[in-house]
Amino acid sequence: MKIGVAGIGHGVFGKRNDATAQELAFEPFSEAMEDCGITQQDIDATIIGSSPEYHKQRSLPGVVTEYIGMNPKPAFLTEAACASGSAALLSAYGFIRAGMFDVVAVIGVQKMMELSTPEILALMGRVGDVQWESNFGTTFPGYYALYARRHMHEFGTTEEQMAQVAIKNHFYGTKNPKARFQKEVSMEKIMSSKIVASPLKMFDCCANADGAACLIIANEDKARKISDTPIWLEGVGSATAPFSVLNRASISTIPSAVEAGKQAFKMADCEPKNIHVADVHDCFTIAELMAYEDLGFCKRGEGGKFIEEKQSYIGGKIPVNVDGGLKSKGHPVGATGTSMAYEAVKQLRGEAGERQVDGAEIALTHNVGGIGQYCFVNIYKR
Amino acid sequence: MKIGVAGIGHGVFGKRNDATAQELAFEPFSEAMEDCGITQQDIDATIIGSSPEYHKQRSLPGVVTEYIGMNPKPAFLTEAACASGSAALLSAYGFIRAGMFDVVAVIGVQKMMELSTPEILALMGRVGDVQWESNFGTTFPGYYALYARRHMHEFGTTEEQMAQVAIKNHFYGTKNPKARFQKEVSMEKIMSSKIVASPLKMFDCCANADGAACLIIANEDKARKISDTPIWLEGVGSATAPFSVLNRASISTIPSAVEAGKQAFKMADCEPKNIHVADVHDCFTIAELMAYEDLGFCKRGEGGKFIEEKQSYIGGKIPVNVDGGLKSKGHPVGATGTSMAYEAVKQLRGEAGERQVDGAEIALTHNVGGIGQYCFVNIYKR
Repeated sequence: MKIGVAGIGHGVFGKRNDATAQELAFEPFSEAMEDCGITQQDIDATIIGSSPEYHKQRSLPGVVTEYIGMNPKPAFLTEAACASGSAALLSAYGFIRAGMFDVVAVIGVQKMMELSTPEILALMGRVGDVQWESNFGTTFPGYYALYARRHMHEFGTTEEQMAQVAIKNHFYGTKNPKARFQKEVSMEKIMSSKIVASPLKMFDCCANADGAACLIIANEDKARKISDTPIWLEGVGSATAPFSVLNRASISTIPSAVEAGKQAFKMADCEPKNIHVADVHDCFTIAELMAYEDLGFCKRGEGGKFIEEKQSYIGGKIPVNVDGGLKSKGHPVGATGTSMAYEAVKQLRGEAGERQVDGAEIALTHNVGGIGQYCFVNIYKR
Repeated sequence: MKIGVAGIGHGVFGKRNDATAQELAFEPFSEAMEDCGITQQDIDATIIGSSPEYHKQRSLPGVVTEYIGMNPKPAFLTEAACASGSAALLSAYGFIRAGMFDVVAVIGVQKMMELSTPEILALMGRVGDVQWESNFGTTFPGYYALYARRHMHEFGTTEEQMAQVAIKNHFYGTKNPKARFQKEVSMEKIMSSKIVASPLKMFDCCANADGAACLIIANEDKARKISDTPIWLEGVGSATAPFSVLNRASISTIPSAVEAGKQAFKMADCEPKNIHVADVHDCFTIAELMAYEDLGFCKRGEGGKFIEEKQSYIGGKIPVNVDGGLKSKGHPVGATGTSMAYEAVKQLRGEAGERQVDGAEIALTHNVGGIGQYCFVNIYKR
């Protein structure tokens, strides 16, 4: 059975003091319903992708489903750190393939900018193993700094190559009206920006944001009925890796991404070279270089060269993050996976405007949770 | 396709200062694997039911899957407040019915006793709608006190009838070695206990606990292969209700429970009178009385009479919470739904020992999330 994305919506990411979490969720939900001409009556369930710790409001699916008019249909939340939105999509995919529901709304939503800096830091300081690692200062950038140092050591990757990821993604961010930052950055500005966790500087890191994106997922019959341009989710891969970096064989790769990628390529019956456009999890610039390698877009250790040669620009081998990526869109944790799926659908429909990859027929999304303990890779076809 | 519970495990609920969340999860997981003679190799994915806000450790599925040896298989967490464990079960059920996985471990786990009283109170104060209701003092017991007052007003339900729920559940708790409290309580002790939110007194309220329970769910073929006594999940129902009590037509009933019950009975092709044993969500004594009515065990308004006549004792019309319920087991939020499923399976296997309902062939579980914004009702058959 084919499973399709029939409708999509995407709110503006950024500092959204104008909206509560439920209001953030409603924006893309209503857009997605309008996109495929349906109403709440036509939707069988709501799956919310979110990381609850950021919200003052507990039990988010409860408050969201009431606000968006989805009672009494079933709802719950999925969490897999920064990949929570992709976990929601996977869960919805399962229900539809099982024949339990025909149409499901997947809403990735996160409100995180109302927290104070100390509150955010306290949360970010607990993303690693709190029993054995967090006490030693392994914050989020701390982990990715370790990965970057190791990658530099093993493969000669340079800070300038990492910076080029930021240059590309901020360049494409100027073409995405939903992105938090829509401004180019220069090599000089990146290289002279404050060190966050050496070698990562401020512009190597993505920023928090409030935001939400929504996908209306449906079985083949329904998708064809409600959408003129259904996009098919033909490969789903998901895997985990040891939470503790002490227990990983290598830290210059994300093993869950390698495994999830293999699953998705196998299921969608294609290879990395067949991908026309991809969104990968660039929470830090080094993460995008590792993603090129983990997904087989280039050989192991050649991520730096890949960006240097502009192979991930439109016109290169595989355009990556031409919606601006997490780097310029901002990273509203639970919304990110659904934002990636939104872009895949926009590209395959040929509706991506200034950032359109001509003739895109196969798109891939790569959503990493936390420090690599989860990865979800999906492949979409027109 | 039939979906079966092939293996079960249940940790000891209570103040578990001896164990981290991942250690709590491992106890019932290893017990469940042993129960059906499998190892991690035979399991395709792990779904964790939990409410993340209680944990210092973020990204629980990451730390749990590493600790229990389930990398690199997929994992994520589901949250639906107090029904998080049932949401995990529903998600696993979907994946198996979809043919995506053959065998899934569902682990409900919660560690909440390490939080200080002010921390717990702050969390419990945000279970309602924080924008419109929490500021007015609607804590958890506050909401259920409203429900109780309304039930008393409409139907003449008495505080003594509510107390009888506590007497029953603590009586059966003495027969459950996994329960936090294994001691009977008297009418006098309950009625003279401190008022928490009038008319609810201390013994009308369930207690927090640390704990975990695990279910190994499998498709029919696998379930028959790995288990001599598979128990079939033949009806699954799930629904939501308005989060805000201001938007409910009535507060003497939980509309999500009524709806989820209908779905489950229809799917399992049976009626309330066919149920031989049930676990219902007695977070407060009034909640059990409302459950009798919402599920059709008795008529609307006759919940008080039902317990007074001991119809929910073994020997009555439908024995309810003979494992002690949340009242005596304690309520480790994410673990509760899986604990209910564990009891259903024990009863249908005829392995419930001193609390066995003779000849039980059909069991029901009723797991309410939060203040009724979610309900999951499942029906199991031998």
